[in-house]
Amino acid sequence: MKDMRLGIFCAGNLGREIYDIALRINEIEHRWQEIVFVDNDETKSEYYGQKVYRLADLEGRQDEMEFVVANGEPQTKKEIYLQIKQAGFHLTNLIDPTAIISPTATIGEGVIVTPYSTINSNVTIGDNVLVQSYVRVGHDIKAESHCVISANTAIGGATIVGEGAFIGMGAAIKEELHIGEYAIVGMGAVVYKDVAAHAVVIGNPARETKGNRAGKVFQ
Amino acid sequence: MKDMRLGIFCAGNLGREIYDIALRINEIEHRWQEIVFVDNDETKSEYYGQKVYRLADLEGRQDEMEFVVANGEPQTKKEIYLQIKQAGFHLTNLIDPTAIISPTATIGEGVIVTPYSTINSNVTIGDNVLVQSYVRVGHDIKAESHCVISANTAIGGATIVGEGAFIGMGAAIKEELHIGEYAIVGMGAVVYKDVAAHAVVIGNPARETKGNRAGKVFQ
Amino acid sequence: MKDMRLGIFCAGNLGREIYDIALRINEIEHRWQEIVFVDNDETKSEYYGQKVYRLADLEGRQDEMEFVVANGEPQTKKEIYLQIKQAGFHLTNLIDPTAIISPTATIGEGVIVTPYSTINSNVTIGDNVLVQSYVRVGHDIKAESHCVISANTAIGGATIVGEGAFIGMGAAIKEELHIGEYAIVGMGAVVYKDVAAHAVVIGNPARETKGNRAGKVFQ
Repeated sequence: MKDMRLGIFCAGNLGREIYDIALRINEIEHRWQEIVFVDNDETKSEYYGQKVYRLADLEGRQDEMEFVVANGEPQTKKEIYLQIKQAGFHLTNLIDPTAIISPTATIGEGVIVTPYSTINSNVTIGDNVLVQSYVRVGHDIKAESHCVISANTAIGGATIVGEGAFIGMGAAIKEELHIGEYAIVGMGAVVYKDVAAHAVVIGNPARETKGNRAGKVFQ
Repeated sequence: MKDMRLGIFCAGNLGREIYDIALRINEIEHRWQEIVFVDNDETKSEYYGQKVYRLADLEGRQDEMEFVVANGEPQTKKEIYLQIKQAGFHLTNLIDPTAIISPTATIGEGVIVTPYSTINSNVTIGDNVLVQSYVRVGHDIKAESHCVISANTAIGGATIVGEGAFIGMGAAIKEELHIGEYAIVGMGAVVYKDVAAHAVVIGNPARETKGNRAGKVFQ
Repeated sequence: MKDMRLGIFCAGNLGREIYDIALRINEIEHRWQEIVFVDNDETKSEYYGQKVYRLADLEGRQDEMEFVVANGEPQTKKEIYLQIKQAGFHLTNLIDPTAIISPTATIGEGVIVTPYSTINSNVTIGDNVLVQSYVRVGHDIKAESHCVISANTAIGGATIVGEGAFIGMGAAIKEELHIGEYAIVGMGAVVYKDVAAHAVVIGNPARETKGNRAGKVFQ
């Protein structure tokens, strides 16, 4: 096997967290001989003590590099994912050694699971999904591609988290619901009903708010 | 010692989660030579790749089987517990290897603790209690028989969770309160005051709702 | 190296939890040959099966003892910390073996981290801070001295938790906020805005309440 390198695409806050997890994995599995950052911002040359590359710099190294996307804004996250794929690179999964994955769960590519989360039976995780810490992804949940599930959220069984949906920290979502694509479930929201695509809900009980017209999580 | 088998009584969603935990325990402790499902529903013969038995099928095997109840509806959970006992079988505890139990905690029979929960000093857990993941059961809490404590809840020290009470995902309950028997604390509820027996409370702060006359958690 | 003893200063509820964690650490690291309680209450001579000392009893043993403060009320917690320092003793950190600390986090003295919490990249933790379980302390957070972060809280990146602030169980706090010194963020509060020093906020969204004039967490 050729020596492998990990590219963390974006050199930002989340990238540092992912870098730390990659170190934890590497200590156990020795998966990568080097871990680097990649970013579209040409002003960044070093980050968190590591080199920062442009994707173009890595042309020709498609068989010795694998990627994860370190961005918490679903739309941007998807764009970067496509950029990586279009450049002929492949994505890998970064599952913290403490995460517990059911033998019957199905997980796509480019999926990141940070410490202490649990993915239960018959769950389906799409591509380029981020599951943060202390999340119990209940039985039969579908977490579709590019969605983000933040720390300390609880999601009941068989709920569908649509493509690019963002679930904020500490939210609770009832079983058997549908969270529409690119919807935003605000921090601490308690969701009893389906959420429409692109809608933003906050509060306990969660209600739709029109306050976020841009549809961006981080503004 | 005779070879032991584990019976997971009900072949449903929670049963699968429990099955996965039993596998995790078995990998470390080799406690059971077989893990099966048991259910009152006569139409079920196989579930999650395993055989499903009726309790009557297992007559005469009382000394080689032990049970847990995999049902999240407290009243049903209690009925199944009594059915198992009346048939002369005994219940066992299923504590995930990652759960942390204080040396001074007291735990009954038929208790299930899923990954990453912590049971603190001088806690008393009754029989047939389910403690889901990411729950800190604070010092001196009494969690009485047949109660269910869902994932990501936080319960302050010395609170009493009455028989068959159901604490929803992501709830927070102040210290030194009394949650009455068969009460339901809704998902994400923030509880500052005692909750009467059979009452249903939701919201932040939690208030009683009359919306659930059936007293069932899952409808 | 001289044999070391751990002093847990207060012999109360939290002290028992800390004692259990000290046992867990000792099992792996054999750090202390004895673990004792210390308390200002002269009526306490034994607690949780261990001896309880007054600080004056330990005079002359400054080089063989190290301390943590087991008190959840920030103002009291600070006073005890100063009492220990003034008596010439030093404080130690008690980090549960399951806690995950980023290599780039900076941690003061007398810091307690209970099971399963994670301290992320470039976090700064002051002195005498308590971080309870299932807390993700996001990147770049500053948790200043004597603050208390309760179980199951989620705090967004780069937020500052001021000196002696108390974050209640299950709270969620947005990124890049400032929680003022000795502020109280109530259990389950969902905080979108800065919180003034000494203010008390509760609810979802969190709003200031005047109900707690004493500024005490536990009354």
